[in-house]
Amino acid sequence: MTEKNTVGSYEFVAEPFCSDFTGHIALGVLGNFLLNVAEFHASDRGFGIITLNEGHYTWVLSRLVLEFDAMPRQTERFTIQTWVENVYRLFTDRNFAVLDKDGKYIGYARSVWAMIDLDTRKPVDLLNVYSGGITSYICDKECPIEKAGKIKVVSETPVRELVMRYSDIDINGHVNSIRYIDHILDLFPLDLYKSKRVKRFEIAYINECHYGDTLLFLCDDKGAGEYHVEIKKKDGGEVVCRSKVIFI
Amino acid sequence: MTEKNTVGSYEFVAEPFCSDFTGHIALGVLGNFLLNVAEFHASDRGFGIITLNEGHYTWVLSRLVLEFDAMPRQTERFTIQTWVENVYRLFTDRNFAVLDKDGKYIGYARSVWAMIDLDTRKPVDLLNVYSGGITSYICDKECPIEKAGKIKVVSETPVRELVMRYSDIDINGHVNSIRYIDHILDLFPLDLYKSKRVKRFEIAYINECHYGDTLLFLCDDKGAGEYHVEIKKKDGGEVVCRSKVIFI
Repeated sequence: MTEKNTVGSYEFVAEPFCSDFTGHIALGVLGNFLLNVAEFHASDRGFGIITLNEGHYTWVLSRLVLEFDAMPRQTERFTIQTWVENVYRLFTDRNFAVLDKDGKYIGYARSVWAMIDLDTRKPVDLLNVYSGGITSYICDKECPIEKAGKIKVVSETPVRELVMRYSDIDINGHVNSIRYIDHILDLFPLDLYKSKRVKRFEIAYINECHYGDTLLFLCDDKGAGEYHVEIKKKDGGEVVCRSKVIFI
Repeated sequence: MTEKNTVGSYEFVAEPFCSDFTGHIALGVLGNFLLNVAEFHASDRGFGIITLNEGHYTWVLSRLVLEFDAMPRQTERFTIQTWVENVYRLFTDRNFAVLDKDGKYIGYARSVWAMIDLDTRKPVDLLNVYSGGITSYICDKECPIEKAGKIKVVSETPVRELVMRYSDIDINGHVNSIRYIDHILDLFPLDLYKSKRVKRFEIAYINECHYGDTLLFLCDDKGAGEYHVEIKKKDGGEVVCRSKVIFI
């Protein structure tokens, strides 16, 4: 299959009221754009969430890695490209590239997804669903950022405790994947964002949360601008997600 | 001036990852769209924030009223129209209409703005700035929702206490106007959103907040789905904003 059909390309404008205080698009907003683009690309090819829901399947985001040399500034145009790198039995790797207004690559992202059956909540075999049709979109376009690594957090003293509310909940009734990014970035002081920026952000989603859950945020400062974060449920201690944030 | 030049019209898609758990565009997201559209409309006519900043002025949102018969559903196209209803010495009224994918009016919004000098923080005379040019865009298009009314909150016991963090802060260094909407909607239980929806949302911005401020949320339940909310600074008790939320 040609790259033309395997790589989806979508243009956006970094709108003034979607920026953080530095005037650049907020990482969470960009994360939402990536998920939207994943959905556009998949649904154009017959395997988006909305098509899947009719077949009682849905996509579940398992890992997300974002790495940027620069972030689009407010009012600037930018482009997101997305493609499927691999399809395994239980997971698929979807990559992204972000290009600035001049068409220069300014960042990449990697994501890992599973498909689940909405009735049984069990994973679906991606090599057999839709007659293995997803594999026909695999593309070998380069994604020159490292895959997600293992994250281990040793701290046991929460730096924040937060109850999940209305705005945290997505259409599946769980806490929205991107909201965790916002909540994690909110752990760091504004002064850090004044002198540095997030170069790389990794998150591994482990267990789902619901409305009313109280979350505990644990954070290890690894030095040199690297932080490892774990979010746990206060009730029961189940790990919700782990994240690595690297500021430069 | 013809309506063609005074009314700006902008098309959007309610993206899947910008919806609340009901699958409709979240009110805060729509609020951001309105502010973006206000900026597009103003900057196309020479008086947007970015043009103004070069002249050391900026717009400050004073009041916002949103009233909807229905909210756009995810993946649906919708249109936002905006126009200037009035220009006074210290304030200007800007209205909005939202049309669904079939071109039917599904909601309206009213906003009141002041312009301030970034050096002195004092208001600018809108009838004289830019040789009174803003007044030439006044338009008498209908906006059939009530203007913002007075809001009084009697409760003195906070229902929530929240510290302002990185994601709350906008490019001016203050708490983002729309974030207050998100925080206010988060006061209400998910069950309320399951049986009802926000029909009307009013907010009056009174004092600015900064990073690190602790805010107290006070709420009067007026019955019949109407709630009055006041946000105050914990330190000093200064009122930040007052809001009226009507669920039906």
